[in-house]
Amino acid sequence: MTETNREWLLAKRPEGEPTAADYEWREGPVPEPGEGEFVVRILYAAMDPAIRGWMDPSGNYMPPIPLGTPVRSVVLGKVVKSNAAAHPVGQIVSGLGAWADYVVARPGMMGPVPVDWGHDLSTYLHPLGAVGATAYYGLFEIGRLKDGENLLVSGAAGGVGSLVGQMGKIKGCRVVGIAGGPEKCRWLTEELGFDAAIDYRAAGDLSAEIGRQLPDGFDVYFENVGGPTLEAAMDNMAIGARIAICGMISAYNDTRNPPPGPRNMWNILVKRAHVEGLLVADYFPRAMEAYSAINDWIKAGRLKFKVDVRDGLENAPEVFNLLFSGAHDGKLLLKIADA
Amino acid sequence: MTETNREWLLAKRPEGEPTAADYEWREGPVPEPGEGEFVVRILYAAMDPAIRGWMDPSGNYMPPIPLGTPVRSVVLGKVVKSNAAAHPVGQIVSGLGAWADYVVARPGMMGPVPVDWGHDLSTYLHPLGAVGATAYYGLFEIGRLKDGENLLVSGAAGGVGSLVGQMGKIKGCRVVGIAGGPEKCRWLTEELGFDAAIDYRAAGDLSAEIGRQLPDGFDVYFENVGGPTLEAAMDNMAIGARIAICGMISAYNDTRNPPPGPRNMWNILVKRAHVEGLLVADYFPRAMEAYSAINDWIKAGRLKFKVDVRDGLENAPEVFNLLFSGAHDGKLLLKIADA
Repeated sequence: MTETNREWLLAKRPEGEPTAADYEWREGPVPEPGEGEFVVRILYAAMDPAIRGWMDPSGNYMPPIPLGTPVRSVVLGKVVKSNAAAHPVGQIVSGLGAWADYVVARPGMMGPVPVDWGHDLSTYLHPLGAVGATAYYGLFEIGRLKDGENLLVSGAAGGVGSLVGQMGKIKGCRVVGIAGGPEKCRWLTEELGFDAAIDYRAAGDLSAEIGRQLPDGFDVYFENVGGPTLEAAMDNMAIGARIAICGMISAYNDTRNPPPGPRNMWNILVKRAHVEGLLVADYFPRAMEAYSAINDWIKAGRLKFKVDVRDGLENAPEVFNLLFSGAHDGKLLLKIADA
Repeated sequence: MTETNREWLLAKRPEGEPTAADYEWREGPVPEPGEGEFVVRILYAAMDPAIRGWMDPSGNYMPPIPLGTPVRSVVLGKVVKSNAAAHPVGQIVSGLGAWADYVVARPGMMGPVPVDWGHDLSTYLHPLGAVGATAYYGLFEIGRLKDGENLLVSGAAGGVGSLVGQMGKIKGCRVVGIAGGPEKCRWLTEELGFDAAIDYRAAGDLSAEIGRQLPDGFDVYFENVGGPTLEAAMDNMAIGARIAICGMISAYNDTRNPPPGPRNMWNILVKRAHVEGLLVADYFPRAMEAYSAINDWIKAGRLKFKVDVRDGLENAPEVFNLLFSGAHDGKLLLKIADA
């Protein structure tokens, strides 16, 4: 355990992909908890695309990260000092923290994770964390997926997408994933049991390729990507199709001149389709429902997942940018300290 | 009553706005009904944007109009010959017909209208027809409008839009309409009771103007237009907003190179919004529920409407194109014969 608290502050609002000049490194003392507060030693930070949105002045669905404060991030850590009865020292917690060694937390910001389920701690930032809850509620609440339907998933080799596809297979659906590159596609079909995987870089006419794999169109499209992928998907809707918009990484870095939306919005009317956005935080009060199901599926060997753990708080900005280059393999986590 | 049957056939699939060369005029004998069929003398044809979609090879949500056959249209007429017990001679019926003097109909294609409510016959092609049902179900089923919410309507001076706004006022909502030109805007606020009307031609920054009129954003947006209007609207969503996509006239004439969709699809996630398409035909089995409510509102003076009736079957192609120039005032109907 370091005796100083190291933090990455947001120094400027990035334009496009963040660069080193957008951050400032600060070292200071380990903080003390105020009344009702507790201090968490951060072990892992989840590198989520949403962080990019919080760096913008609009902040998107949360207040923007104030300039000069630590970069906000979903984290997992251990309580090391506590003035909060519900969060004793030694408790493993997860929730909103920062790119830092330590943060001061209040009840509600972070909550205990079910460590008694016996998983590696990184698991609580992937299938048993917000990633898993996003997949579960996006698919079953927003997408209202029914057994045996046709499911299309973009960003299929990503954290959320890979869980979504496997949940679709558990429900007896035909599952087609869209991912970048032959290796990711092989992983989807050979390891995770997807019925087909489309390499969007090699597909040429993506819309036509989706049509070949799903000749009756999709009943549910789980959207993680946005941009031209969404347009291609929307050419292939079955009547009454549902599109769950859970992320649009293609739009995050292009806030000033975002790419045009789909030209075929018209199809929403023609197909009486339903497009809806998911913000997983809305489901946190019910998250244990998802986690229980996911825990059972993991133990039954029906839900596989991959984490790509990078080391060192000092590398946070570089690691974060791997999200935008796609040069990571599985849910991207930054390990800050050992448990 | 003419003794010949005059018809406008679709000769070619139009590119963009239809021209005279896309049609063929045919005269022939008045048809005879087959077994179980009946013949309808058409009195009015509704000039709906949807017809443009049916002229395309895709047909959009119905089979395309076959080349060499009469242009499909929603009509109102009188049964003049019948081999169908439920449709005696003299009955006033409405449903899918054509730009013609006479059509042969089967039960299910056309049904009787409640003439005992005592309205002018044109009323059964506007508030008491598919137009009214589109407004009613789009607003209350797709849009799930609740009392006192903020409602935004595009194409607000059109048939559907003008009813939508008034239904919003009946429910105690703040209603803002978007329309083209100062006269239409005046009609909305001074005659129909809209809280505000935005002239999109004069507004400059439409998104900002919507924001001025609806500082908390809209809870429901009733979309009749598409294109840049949709994008401007989507900058102004309240959390949990609903968008009912009921028509996109800006897309109808540009099938080969439709305009880009909204660049701010991202907002659907941020605002946990819900976008859904309405096809009014899905609600026809329940249409009397809408018509009863609308009839009551008309009789109570709470729902006003305007029909723009043009004369003469021979003018059908020119009258139809008024839809795309906006050079009409109220729901556009073609009168083909007197009752």
